[in-house]
Amino acid sequence: MTASRDSVTLSADVVPIDRRDLRRMIDEASATELHALVDEAHADEIVHAVTSLPEDEREKLFDVLDAERGAAVLELLPDSQAVDSLESLDPDAAAELIHELDSEDQADLIALLDDPELILSRLPAEEAEEIRDLASYPADTAGGMMGTEFLAFPLGSTVGDVVKELQDHADEHSDADVQYVYVTDEDGRLRGVLPLRNLVVSKRARKISDVMIADPLAMPSDATLDRMIAFFDDHHFLGVPVVTTAEDPVPGRLLGVLQAAEVDEAEAELRGGEFRRSQGIVGGEELRSMPLLLRSRRRFSWLTLNIGLNVVAASVIARNLDVIEAIAPLAVIMPIISDMSGCSGNQAVAVSMRELSLNVARPSDWFRVWRKEAAVGSVNGIGLGLLLGLAGGLWQGPWFGFVVGAALAANTLVAVSIGGVVPLLLKGLKLDPAVGAGPILTTVTDMCGFFLVLTMAANLLQQA
Amino acid sequence: MTASRDSVTLSADVVPIDRRDLRRMIDEASATELHALVDEAHADEIVHAVTSLPEDEREKLFDVLDAERGAAVLELLPDSQAVDSLESLDPDAAAELIHELDSEDQADLIALLDDPELILSRLPAEEAEEIRDLASYPADTAGGMMGTEFLAFPLGSTVGDVVKELQDHADEHSDADVQYVYVTDEDGRLRGVLPLRNLVVSKRARKISDVMIADPLAMPSDATLDRMIAFFDDHHFLGVPVVTTAEDPVPGRLLGVLQAAEVDEAEAELRGGEFRRSQGIVGGEELRSMPLLLRSRRRFSWLTLNIGLNVVAASVIARNLDVIEAIAPLAVIMPIISDMSGCSGNQAVAVSMRELSLNVARPSDWFRVWRKEAAVGSVNGIGLGLLLGLAGGLWQGPWFGFVVGAALAANTLVAVSIGGVVPLLLKGLKLDPAVGAGPILTTVTDMCGFFLVLTMAANLLQQA
Repeated sequence: MTASRDSVTLSADVVPIDRRDLRRMIDEASATELHALVDEAHADEIVHAVTSLPEDEREKLFDVLDAERGAAVLELLPDSQAVDSLESLDPDAAAELIHELDSEDQADLIALLDDPELILSRLPAEEAEEIRDLASYPADTAGGMMGTEFLAFPLGSTVGDVVKELQDHADEHSDADVQYVYVTDEDGRLRGVLPLRNLVVSKRARKISDVMIADPLAMPSDATLDRMIAFFDDHHFLGVPVVTTAEDPVPGRLLGVLQAAEVDEAEAELRGGEFRRSQGIVGGEELRSMPLLLRSRRRFSWLTLNIGLNVVAASVIARNLDVIEAIAPLAVIMPIISDMSGCSGNQAVAVSMRELSLNVARPSDWFRVWRKEAAVGSVNGIGLGLLLGLAGGLWQGPWFGFVVGAALAANTLVAVSIGGVVPLLLKGLKLDPAVGAGPILTTVTDMCGFFLVLTMAANLLQQA
Repeated sequence: MTASRDSVTLSADVVPIDRRDLRRMIDEASATELHALVDEAHADEIVHAVTSLPEDEREKLFDVLDAERGAAVLELLPDSQAVDSLESLDPDAAAELIHELDSEDQADLIALLDDPELILSRLPAEEAEEIRDLASYPADTAGGMMGTEFLAFPLGSTVGDVVKELQDHADEHSDADVQYVYVTDEDGRLRGVLPLRNLVVSKRARKISDVMIADPLAMPSDATLDRMIAFFDDHHFLGVPVVTTAEDPVPGRLLGVLQAAEVDEAEAELRGGEFRRSQGIVGGEELRSMPLLLRSRRRFSWLTLNIGLNVVAASVIARNLDVIEAIAPLAVIMPIISDMSGCSGNQAVAVSMRELSLNVARPSDWFRVWRKEAAVGSVNGIGLGLLLGLAGGLWQGPWFGFVVGAALAANTLVAVSIGGVVPLLLKGLKLDPAVGAGPILTTVTDMCGFFLVLTMAANLLQQA
């Protein structure tokens, strides 16, 4: 928390980075100007300017920046671009950048590299070993999300020992990092935690074992993201120590500290991801700076699944071509029924996804959810059916209006039932509801809608 | 951070709440059992069990619980249910519950009540005034999100004064709440911040003005959520003081503390909200426990907008009924083209929404985004066009295959161009891209797709 009186107006007047200026600095390899830019510019401006640079200029930028500023920029970039930049650099330069990062960021980026040893082998042996250890935990476990910067003292230490360590290393431990001091036994097992407040109010000669909170809450290194989210929902802690699992030769050994902020970030990413996954943007996060064919391929695999499902749904129409030939106006109505049912069903999907994430609904609640959706579907189905039926009746006569109105009403009920229940069922089957619910919903409601309108038309309209 | 050795296994073996048990306890008004349940059960289990109770049982539950436990349950519930519960209670009982909450939660719930004064008038005058003040800030500003629990000392205090206060009130200030102590002048202006670490390492006789960080960063009370998110992206702080704005008679006066966790939560809600808003679940968050007609009405207004846009798009088909009569198989293809173009376009929407939220793209980047999308659209359009063209050709002959393939290819290009660019344009016009992009995309691509396939068919197939 550094000082300046006009900081009250911070980030109100963000100075935009002129991209031509930036490219000139890079071309001229003007380190002084670039360093000033990184030190002074707003983080958002740096992200925007750097991510929209052409790839070769982005590479040159890191050549010009010193390791400290380079690491600061690297931390801000989306992971995919940070890794691309590291891979494009000379391995010695990349190793210097990695050295400057926090342990979580080190492990995250190293885990994404094609050839991590190329860089790791250029780091001090102990640091490389620590990163390898940290990168070996799956990314979405407590081990994969923890940092290894923490202060631990043996049980026999005094308050004075801890205060002396804090005084001696005031620069290294920034405010945000040290909020607790941990206490371990001779095997490295976590035995206590010491809030800084307890240090403030205790005499220096006291043993820390007398003022610590004994046997504190901890996360095993294999804890899942769901469990971490639940933990920080229940406990308003800033961080929690991570320890070895019950399967470890020495269970309960202190490994690192999981920050609540890391879990919040992962949770935000998870929630935002639902929207993109439901559109088939999966397998890593697409950015428009990625190569064309990679982006096309990722999207295409989803689209071909959809075209297949669409052909299945449309085959219902193909088998009733005689009805279309006899009553061509039905061809106008079918896309409306398909799209409206999709909309109604997707509303039910959205509510189910939210109730799942709030833990208000669970797979076992499918019957309650279905009843609730059926009620809304009946009300809105009748409303929409009346609207479309009226329009259809005015256009092509009362029987036509009746058929299209009734088909839309019935299909709305089908759509919300599927939309409400399918996410719960997929979740119960341990499948990802964000990916699966959309295509299932669209295909089934299309087939059902086309079937309803065409069979009713065949039976009623041709008689009328 | 309370203690228990088996806490390492916390939340691994969550005991589910039996809903029949819960209802029995409520019916028997068994306070002892209910208190034990609230004290011991996992927060997720409480949310799930309480939200799925019928409304009248939920009301009775709060009658049985004491104020402390009632407030603990209230904090866990989604806002809409918490407010419903408060409104159903006797105002005196509701006031007791409100009294137990943190200041942020108090203000949030009071702001949602139909008649807040009914409850506020039953609270101690000073507390009611504080809540009124806090509730008067717009919910998505720093003032609306701050808490008023903080420790502030005048400039002349000593380290010993602060330590004594912390010792005397060890119970009131829980670990998580007090990480910093604030320093104010005689007008209540924020003059410094004192990290607990500085207290640890300083002699008791020193003036806090000598060991504080002077003129610290602060947020004005009218700061927007975007600005708060940017602030905590730039600064890894746990919280930041909130002060009066430059327009206030005394600018820079300390009002409260904004916790980073509050901003993270609001950000997660914002991102998850994109998905729901894009489905027309707007104007508050729908839960299936809400009244049927309220839920139906909210969804219906969105659906009627969509049915109108759909009729506009389908009118392109209506004007070409002669083509459908002549070539009925086109009626099979049109829903496929409509759905596939929608899918492709929505992928582009999803990437634009993410790039906007990462600040990698801005409205002024629309041309760059369009070029990038046009490239992906060309590749995927040709691929999809070949697939559908081949299927169509095998089914109805080469000319038919050519028309439907070419129409899908061209319309994919249109769809991704609109999908990529429209969110940026809406953002530039200060409209919500999550709500607007979907309907615009669907209507335009449907119209364009139907037009392409029908005019090509009219010109080519009838000659063939």
